[in-house]
This record gives sequence, C-alpha cells and structure tokens, in this order.
Amino acid sequence: MAAGDSASHSPHSPAVRSLEKQFQEFRHQLDDSGSLRERIRSVAADIESAARVMHSSLLLIHQSRSIPEVFKKAKALIGVLIELYGKLAEIMGERPGQYYRYHGDWRSETQTVVSLLAFMHWLETESLLLHAEAEEKLGLKSLEFGLDIEDYLVGICFMSNDLPRYVVNQVTAGNYDCPRKVLKFLTDVHAAFRMLNLRNDFLRKKFDGMKYDLRRVEEVHYDVKIRGLTMKGNSTEKQGNGGRS
Amino acid sequence: MAAGDSASHSPHSPAVRSLEKQFQEFRHQLDDSGSLRERIRSVAADIESAARVMHSSLLLIHQSRSIPEVFKKAKALIGVLIELYGKLAEIMGERPGQYYRYHGDWRSETQTVVSLLAFMHWLETESLLLHAEAEEKLGLKSLEFGLDIEDYLVGICFMSNDLPRYVVNQVTAGNYDCPRKVLKFLTDVHAAFRMLNLRNDFLRKKFDGMKYDLRRVEEVHYDVKIRGLTMKGNSTEKQGNGGRS
Amino acid sequence: MAAGDSASHSPHSPAVRSLEKQFQEFRHQLDDSGSLRERIRSVAADIESAARVMHSSLLLIHQSRSIPEVFKKAKALIGVLIELYGKLAEIMGERPGQYYRYHGDWRSETQTVVSLLAFMHWLETESLLLHAEAEEKLGLKSLEFGLDIEDYLVGICFMSNDLPRYVVNQVTAGNYDCPRKVLKFLTDVHAAFRMLNLRNDFLRKKFDGMKYDLRRVEEVHYDVKIRGLTMKGNSTEKQGNGGRS
Amino acid sequence: MAAGDSASHSPHSPAVRSLEKQFQEFRHQLDDSGSLRERIRSVAADIESAARVMHSSLLLIHQSRSIPEVFKKAKALIGVLIELYGKLAEIMGERPGQYYRYHGDWRSETQTVVSLLAFMHWLETESLLLHAEAEEKLGLKSLEFGLDIEDYLVGICFMSNDLPRYVVNQVTAGNYDCPRKVLKFLTDVHAAFRMLNLRNDFLRKKFDGMKYDLRRVEEVHYDVKIRGLTMKGNSTEKQGNGGRS
Repeated sequence: MAAGDSASHSPHSPAVRSLEKQFQEFRHQLDDSGSLRERIRSVAADIESAARVMHSSLLLIHQSRSIPEVFKKAKALIGVLIELYGKLAEIMGERPGQYYRYHGDWRSETQTVVSLLAFMHWLETESLLLHAEAEEKLGLKSLEFGLDIEDYLVGICFMSNDLPRYVVNQVTAGNYDCPRKVLKFLTDVHAAFRMLNLRNDFLRKKFDGMKYDLRRVEEVHYDVKIRGLTMKGNSTEKQGNGGRS
Repeated sequence: MAAGDSASHSPHSPAVRSLEKQFQEFRHQLDDSGSLRERIRSVAADIESAARVMHSSLLLIHQSRSIPEVFKKAKALIGVLIELYGKLAEIMGERPGQYYRYHGDWRSETQTVVSLLAFMHWLETESLLLHAEAEEKLGLKSLEFGLDIEDYLVGICFMSNDLPRYVVNQVTAGNYDCPRKVLKFLTDVHAAFRMLNLRNDFLRKKFDGMKYDLRRVEEVHYDVKIRGLTMKGNSTEKQGNGGRS
Repeated sequence: MAAGDSASHSPHSPAVRSLEKQFQEFRHQLDDSGSLRERIRSVAADIESAARVMHSSLLLIHQSRSIPEVFKKAKALIGVLIELYGKLAEIMGERPGQYYRYHGDWRSETQTVVSLLAFMHWLETESLLLHAEAEEKLGLKSLEFGLDIEDYLVGICFMSNDLPRYVVNQVTAGNYDCPRKVLKFLTDVHAAFRMLNLRNDFLRKKFDGMKYDLRRVEEVHYDVKIRGLTMKGNSTEKQGNGGRS
Repeated sequence: MAAGDSASHSPHSPAVRSLEKQFQEFRHQLDDSGSLRERIRSVAADIESAARVMHSSLLLIHQSRSIPEVFKKAKALIGVLIELYGKLAEIMGERPGQYYRYHGDWRSETQTVVSLLAFMHWLETESLLLHAEAEEKLGLKSLEFGLDIEDYLVGICFMSNDLPRYVVNQVTAGNYDCPRKVLKFLTDVHAAFRMLNLRNDFLRKKFDGMKYDLRRVEEVHYDVKIRGLTMKGNSTEKQGNGGRS
C-alpha cells in the first residue's frame, strides 16, 4: 500500500487496542449469556412438552371419564415438572439477581402449567389453587426461585377460559349441578380479580376475557334451571363423576 | 341467602376467605410494583427529555459551529443526566435483584444517551467511547447499577447512524479530511462488532444497519479523493474545527 | 358412565383402531423427517457461520489489503465448507429423491457461499466462476448432490451487489483501472443473464437489482475517465494490488 | 482490446465464450423446467376446477338432500380426478427424484381434494378416510407418485372445518342424532392428531383450528341434549338421511 493511502490504518494504535480488548470481553459475556439462555430455553421446551401431554390427558374430562382415570397420567407429569423447575432454579441460582433478565424465556410455559394445575385443583376441591399452593406443587421456593404473581394470575385466567367448555360437556353428560358450582367459583374468582388495580397490560386483557367465560357459564346455568333439570341432576352427577369425593 | 338460589355463595366460607386474603396481598404487591414503575418511568421521562435537548444542541455541529460552542450546553446536560441516573440507582437500590425486572423502562432512553455521549467523545478524541468510560461519565457504578452491555452496543450503532450526515456537512463546509477520519473510525468499530456472535435479535438488526453508514461514508470519501480535494483539506480542516486538538 | 350417554364411545372399535394405527405410523414418519430436518439445519447453521467468517475476512479487501493477505483465512474456510457440504450430501444420500424436499433448508446459505466464491474467483482471475467450477470448489458431485442452478445464479447476483463498493474503495485507494475491469466483467455477466427467460420470481428480482450495480460502476468509471485519472492508474494499481498475478 | 476504449470487450475471449456457453445451457434447463412447471400447473388448475365443482355439489348436503342424490355428481368427478392425477404422475415420472421440486404446484389443490373425499367417506361410513384409502380412491401408487402425508393431514383438518356447519344444518332438518355422531368422530380424530409431535408450522396451525370445530359441535350437541331432542332424533334421522345404510 502506498504511504499516502489515507484510508489505511495502523491496527496497533492504543485506541484500537483498547477497542478490541473491550469487544473481546463483550464477546465472552454475550456468548456466556447466550449459552445460558440456550440452557434455559431447552428446559422451557421440556416444560412446554410436559404441559402439552398433561393438557392432552386432562382433555378426557370433556368425554366424561372419571377423575381418577383422567388424573393418573397428569399427576405423574407433575413429578416431571418439579424436576424441570428444579433445573431452572439451579441454572438461575448461578446468576443471583438475574431472574427477571431471563424470565421471559419460561413465563408463557409457566402460565400454561398454572392453568392446568388450577383446573385439576378445582376438579378435586372446587376451590381456587392459591399462589403458595402452586409454588408448593411445583417445588418452588419463593425467595430463591418463585412463581411470579402475574404469571400465576394469567394462568388463572387461562383456566377460566376452559371452564365453559367443561360445563357444556358435563351438562351434556347429565351432570346438571355442574354449572351452579362452576358459576359460584368463577364469580368468586372474578370478584377477587376486581380487587386488583390492573393496568392496561397483558394481564388486564386476559382478565377482561374472563367475563365472557362467566357469561357463558351463566347461560348454561340458566338453560339448566329454566328446564328444571337441576333436580334430576343430583342423581345423574353421581354416575357421571363417580370417583369424585 | 335464599335456600333455592343455587348460584349464590357464602362470602365467609374458608376457601373464599383465603382467596380474598390472597388477592388483598396481591393488590398490595401489584400497587407497590406499580408505583415503583411510575417513579422509574417519571425519571426515564426526564432522561428522555434531557437527551432530546442535548441532541438538539449537538445538531448545531452540522452547521459547522465550533466544538466548544456546541459542547457548552451539552456538557451542562451531562450533569443533569448524572443526577437522573443517580435517582434511578437509588430507586433500584430499594429492590436488590430486580434491575432486569424494570430495565425495559429506561433502556431505550439509555441507548440514546450512550449514542450522544459517544458522538461527543468521538468529536473530542476521534476514538470510541468505551463502556467503562460511558459508565463513568454517567456516574454509574457497575456492580450496583451499571450500564447494560447490549444497551451500550445499541447506543454505539445509533451513533454510527448519525455519522454519514456529519461527514456530508463537514465536507460541504470545506473539512475535506473528515471522511477519511470517520471512515477509519467506523471501519474499526464495524470490525470490532464483527468479533461478536450476534444472534438474530434487536442488536443484530441495528448492527446490520451500520454497514450502510460505512458504505455512505466510503462514498463521500471517494467523492473527495477523486476530485483531489484532500490536499486542500488539511488547511481547511483547521478552520472548520478550530477548537479541536 | 351411564349406558344412555350418547357422546361416549368405545375406544376399541375397529375403525378407531385403524385410525390410531395410522397416526402411530405418521408419528414415526413425521418424527423421522423432523429429526432429519434438524440434522440438515444444524449443518446449514455451520455453513452460515463459516460463510459469515469468510465474508468478514474478505471485507478487508475494501481497506486495500493485498489479495494474498485477504485470501489466507478465506481459503482455509473453503476446506471447512467442503466438509460441511460433504455432511449434507451424506445426509441426503440416505433419502434418495428427496433433495428438493429439504432444499429450502440450505439454499440461502448456499447462495451466500456462491457469492463469496465468485467474488474471490473474480479477484484472482477477473472472470466469472462457472457453475461447474463452483461445484468443484465445494466438492459437490452434480448427480448425487449438486448445486442447484437457481442458487448459483442468485449467488452471482449477490456478488454483483458487492462490486460497486469494491470499485469505490479501490479508486479511493488509487487503483484507477479497477472500474474499467469491473465494468467489463459486469457487462458480460449482465448480458449473459439477459439470455435467460426469467419469470417473475426471486431470481428475476435479484437480477433486476444487478442493473443498479452496473449503473453505479459506470458512474465511477465515468468519474475516473473524465478526470483523466486512468493514465496514472496503471502505476498506482501495481502497488495497490501487488500480490495479484 | 482496442487501445482507447477501456470499457469495451472482445466477445471472443475464452472466458466470455465459456460464460456464454454456460448461460446457453442454463437457458435450456430453465426453459425446460419452466415448461414442465407450466404442464404441471395446467393439470393442477384442472384438479382445482374439478374440486370446485365437486365441492359445489356436496354443498347440497346442507340442504338436506339425500346422500345418493348429492353423491351422484361428486362420484363422477372422482373419475376425472383419477385421470388428472394420472397425468401428474406421468409428468413426474419423466423426472425421477423431483417430486418435491414441483410438489408446491399441486399441494393446496390436493389438500382440498382430500378434504372432499374424507367428507364423503364420513357421510358413507362414519369413519375417517385413511391415507391408503385416499390414495386408492385417486388411483395413486405410493412409491411412484403418492399422497404426501402432510397434505393428507391438512386435508383432514379442512374437512373438520366443514363439520360444524353440517351439524347445524342437520339438526335444523330434524336429524338430532347427528351432533353425537360427529362429536364422537371429531373427538377420535382430534385425539389421533394429538399423538403427533407437530412443529410450529402450517399443519400445526390447521390442527389448532380443529379444536374450535370440536367446541362448536359440542355446543350443538349440548343444545340438542338439554332440550331432550335426542329421543325423537332416532326416528327423524332415518328420514333425513334415508339412503344411508
């Protein structure tokens, strides 16, 4: 290169050296957080997969199978989920204070998991799965690696979305008392959500959808009542959900 | 409660009581993080506002005002920014480990601030503002409340986007050596970024745009060279940027 | 379930059994082609990565480094590419007749590779890398696993897109004969493409872009000629590209 | 090379000659695959047209015409389809191993054809048209020119989309047992699809839509049951679908 070439540069000037040194360090840090993210995403994919299988087996409830039969597989998968969340907690334990840096990588999977656990819990107890109970079921320890409140709340909204279909299929199968129970439950949950000052965000939108679920369940309840089916319902229900305590 | 009202419920059942208690706690926590977020957003809005004024005053450089004149106001605003980032650090100091929970609320403002500081730094030193230097200028202490590396890198990309316009206006004002200097600088920065394994994300897109800046500066450099203007350039430059060492 | 429940079904009816059997087979086949696709994509990602590094090292040509210096790293990477295409050929060898089923997973990477090889070839020989030469360089055997003609042609269009920048930087560095050579080359390639009856597809769009490259190179050639720089160019060129035969 | 004309070129240099020779060959190959594609597209257009007429005649089922009446025209069109697929198979037979190169040109038409055949099959047998049965009906021979599995599966999803409307119209016509039968069928098909590990692709999206069909049919089934219409249904059904065995 001719000496006068104005665009050439010396790669060894101090400014360029400190520039290169800085980017070398960045490379290490970005690669490091990149590989951490890959590990997290791999566990999140396993959570998603376990939740999908769990959802599949819970779908049998719409075909009026008995609760013990439906729960058998789902309960085994909770064990798998505990293990996977344990892995996530372990990974995040390596990076104290960075829970929320990577939180986006497992949050939608966790919302689905909460919705499934809350649905199962309702089938068993006819009450809402509490946040602390959800953490316990998943083996989470709040302080180190807990369940984000908003994820929990979104999960409850997702569960609500499944209830109208459940009610319709239960009535079809002759369980005429189901709408009343679900309506009471959903009314309580809806009222509790109304205590919160929700902003104009994702959770607010999901909560706004809950009122359609409530409306649909009210309609089914109305259909059943106006036809005087609730009296017969009590006896039929025992057959339909024989295994339930 | 009327005996026949199948959908009504007792608000005093234990299940409903624990449901309400939980949502009361959630209300406190959501209100708390909501008001924290409002405080953060208020500071971020002030940062955005200071950065906008700073950007305005730096624009005078395109009208070939002298560097000391242009920098006077901008440097005063750095004092304002130091104070604002101090406030942010104080707020986040109340929530150890939640930096990344709220990070999204000040990140784009910070990227703009970095781009302005890096542009000023280049005008003064013809070298890249390093990450540690940026933190120092803003009074940030890495461990407690630092400058996120990706925000720094995006800020550098934003600065690059301003350089072609600067070069064109400098040449118009007779500073014919400016394209060569900017080209050397941008080539070094571009090469440094290429050391990183960037994923298909926001930073990658911003970096991909840098090559258009580089190409545009090359074109201006070409125009100046082919017309043999670089020889005269050396003397003119001293007039155009008189205050520069 | 009560006998009268009309929505229940026997999971053991012959129709359901053959349905399940069919979907079990599908599951195997879809999983099989899914895992094949993952293997292909993993190799394609490695090709993309090698091409990116190769592109980085070739970029130094714009800073007027000598060809042997620039080519050293790039040529070593051709060895890596041969190995990777060998892997692809091996994978596709397991599925005779399915080249085009999975072709979409490596085609854009291959177009980039062709553009880089063709650019290197032009720097060395000032002629177009032919299709057969590209296959040879990559160790491909047409009949078993060849280079798709359209991928080759798109790659040539991509190379054309890099030529204006190369010409501008060569002239800046004093190599005034470069525009004439590139213009002759690009004119020939453009004329050859015009022999093809291109439809309204991706290749056609890429080819349409080539005329802008041609126009830009013509402008630079004009700039150089009108200033009578071509005479001086001959001597400067020898310095600028000293290592070229 | 003419001394003064720096941009002109000799069309007879060896490099240009091999360039031109290559592009002449490309021209032949591109023209050849272009005319092949035109022949394929022409047959695909005929398939699309036959499928459209077939769909039109099947729509009469929503007006409660008897199955033999509705099927008469549709069955004649199957003969046309067999001929057209025979033509496609013949064309592709000229290019062994290129099935998937041109597959995109007949795939959406084939998905529609599968959905129509599967709907007719369900009307006749109340069971799912299997993949092998679909191939047989179209005169396809798997090894030489078969029905792609994903096309078959997408076709089944399309058929599912037509079922809610069919159920609604059957109930309107007094066939109260129809929802139960369709629900059983759709539940089985949905469960079978869930056995597959579908990726985030086109087929997955189509399958995700099937749950809305299922839900809609459940709602109709619910409406019929809650009104106690199913008892009358048994006798009415015989009238509504008189010709069915």
